[in-house]
Amino acid sequence: MGERFGVRYRIFAATQQEAEVRAEGIALEQTVEIPRDCVPPGYIEDTILGQVISVVPESEGAYFAEITYSMDAVGNGFTQLLNVIFGNSSIQMGIKLVGFTPCAALTEQFPGAGFGAKGIRALTGRKTGGFVCPVIKPMGSSSERLAELAYLSARAGADIIKEDHGLANQPLAPFVERVVAIEKAVSRANMERAEEGDTTRALYFANLCPGAFDLRNKAMFAQEAGADGVIIMPGISGFDAINALTRDPDFALPIMAHPSHLGPFVLSPETGYSHAMMFGTLMRLAGADISVFPNVGGRFGFSLGECASIASACGEPGGYGVEILPSPGGGMSVQRMAEMVEIYGDDCVYLLGGALLRYGDRIGDGIREMRVALSGKFT
Amino acid sequence: MGERFGVRYRIFAATQQEAEVRAEGIALEQTVEIPRDCVPPGYIEDTILGQVISVVPESEGAYFAEITYSMDAVGNGFTQLLNVIFGNSSIQMGIKLVGFTPCAALTEQFPGAGFGAKGIRALTGRKTGGFVCPVIKPMGSSSERLAELAYLSARAGADIIKEDHGLANQPLAPFVERVVAIEKAVSRANMERAEEGDTTRALYFANLCPGAFDLRNKAMFAQEAGADGVIIMPGISGFDAINALTRDPDFALPIMAHPSHLGPFVLSPETGYSHAMMFGTLMRLAGADISVFPNVGGRFGFSLGECASIASACGEPGGYGVEILPSPGGGMSVQRMAEMVEIYGDDCVYLLGGALLRYGDRIGDGIREMRVALSGKFT
Repeated sequence: MGERFGVRYRIFAATQQEAEVRAEGIALEQTVEIPRDCVPPGYIEDTILGQVISVVPESEGAYFAEITYSMDAVGNGFTQLLNVIFGNSSIQMGIKLVGFTPCAALTEQFPGAGFGAKGIRALTGRKTGGFVCPVIKPMGSSSERLAELAYLSARAGADIIKEDHGLANQPLAPFVERVVAIEKAVSRANMERAEEGDTTRALYFANLCPGAFDLRNKAMFAQEAGADGVIIMPGISGFDAINALTRDPDFALPIMAHPSHLGPFVLSPETGYSHAMMFGTLMRLAGADISVFPNVGGRFGFSLGECASIASACGEPGGYGVEILPSPGGGMSVQRMAEMVEIYGDDCVYLLGGALLRYGDRIGDGIREMRVALSGKFT
Repeated sequence: MGERFGVRYRIFAATQQEAEVRAEGIALEQTVEIPRDCVPPGYIEDTILGQVISVVPESEGAYFAEITYSMDAVGNGFTQLLNVIFGNSSIQMGIKLVGFTPCAALTEQFPGAGFGAKGIRALTGRKTGGFVCPVIKPMGSSSERLAELAYLSARAGADIIKEDHGLANQPLAPFVERVVAIEKAVSRANMERAEEGDTTRALYFANLCPGAFDLRNKAMFAQEAGADGVIIMPGISGFDAINALTRDPDFALPIMAHPSHLGPFVLSPETGYSHAMMFGTLMRLAGADISVFPNVGGRFGFSLGECASIASACGEPGGYGVEILPSPGGGMSVQRMAEMVEIYGDDCVYLLGGALLRYGDRIGDGIREMRVALSGKFT
């Protein structure tokens, strides 16, 4: 009780003094949300009110402010943690959340990822090298067709079979039917791989796209149906969807986070989170095991530096909880694999979506070519 | 099935041709998410793929693109609706979602607000004039102290007693204890008002700040405890938290939406939603009865035009579902009331937070002054 954790903001201001005023404003806004002279002395002023620890110049017109908050402000909820670190301040221009320093009480309550990079590697049985992850799509396909693509991909040696994040509960591939069909297809491929002496297996990640009332039901259904993991879009379902599942004693599958609807949180330099904070630290904090993000050079505009910072925030040993796997997607191709491996290395889930669809029923060839390219034997 | 609804995007592009290419890119990205030449002919190409209806110049470097999507892409989930209208495209710069045209199948599935402006007016019994809405805070206060402030405010004639969005499950005011205490306090004040012949009553809105698993439990608890409404932060809990409660046959309270953590969705001109779309249309679509947003001239930077556009999107008779109430907050004061009434008129929930705290135990005086100012007898 009363332990404090730290949040680092980049504040845009013309002078040190202005930056300090803004920092004090954040400390008020995120906690008591009343004018400074109205803050009751004692517990509220000493403990609940945010404390500005330091304000230091970063670059021309930008300052780093370190503010600490009490666990008493958070209570026991992950939703309230987000509310405290960035709730109303997210609505003010010129404030970017760029860092987080937990305290023991916080890490005890929010343990982070249940599997992480090592756990995923163990589940696949792939001892070294990057993970090959085809995305099964397009939306509008029948469950049967999606299962067929999943089978062919798994049979060809894919490590993770990821459903497209757009597969929800469409007429031709309703959730229950689809998950059962794809799970069976991947299981069959895994059995055949095992019979051939392959010691690795494909993990099937089901996309939940849950409503506010059926997250747990959908997650438990996927688990009981034999899926190996689930996909959550925190930009749509909220970050606590990940945290709640991670902490659920009855749920024991890894979680892949997809960035859908999260763009505005990182695209502007003057608001939101830094790329590393959003797709690295925050994902680890919520408990995601794999963090999907748009790859440099694809149809999204993330820079090489931004992507590298995400990968580093995911894989950093000193970060929140266990190390997790970055998963760049979008604009990935067999031809670009060598370049990708340079950036992301082995502890990375390499997504391949649209480019793979070009192979049609020869999708297995695409998987095999990707594996070769990943292992560096391609160039 | 297969009915289509429309979404309007503002696309930043140098030429008409570039804008058209980008629009086609959105139509692909938001549905099949594969290259155009890989889209299977027939159902997927004809129905599932987004259809660009028009791309017209708006202003220098900006175009309006109208794209329609099939209900088959949405299936039956509100989360998937958001995923389809803006999921991955939210991660591309230069695309702003500015308009929405529903189809009958969509309005049937997502009915909008259960109470709206008229319903709230009926519940309060206040036949004319704006609604006075004190915000009970600060975080860190005991349940007893918060209940006392709620009683004094309700007793003085407040229409809505809103809990601060930062009240979650803190040690000195845990959720269950707090909701029971404040409800009792507001009930007592309402009884005393009724005894004096007052035909209006104060509505108590409880802040849920639910986790991903306990939204329904918390909402039902608040209802059973006698609260008159609940507060949801869609930026933290997801928009479906509002939609799911609105559609729950056992839940019959109005919902107030709070903008915490939503800032990045509107602050940048080049990404996210327009102010009117986010705090007006999207709130109506989700089913909120009251939409809180930062008022012009306060400590947030919303312009007069942006605030007016929100109020108009909330109150427009032709908009989604029933008309709802805009609720500007932040920087509101008795002194500014006349100006505020000019902008927002009578069908508006006027939030008063920090400024009210200055009154201390004389908070009732603040409520009465605000009522006088609202009714135009002040200036």
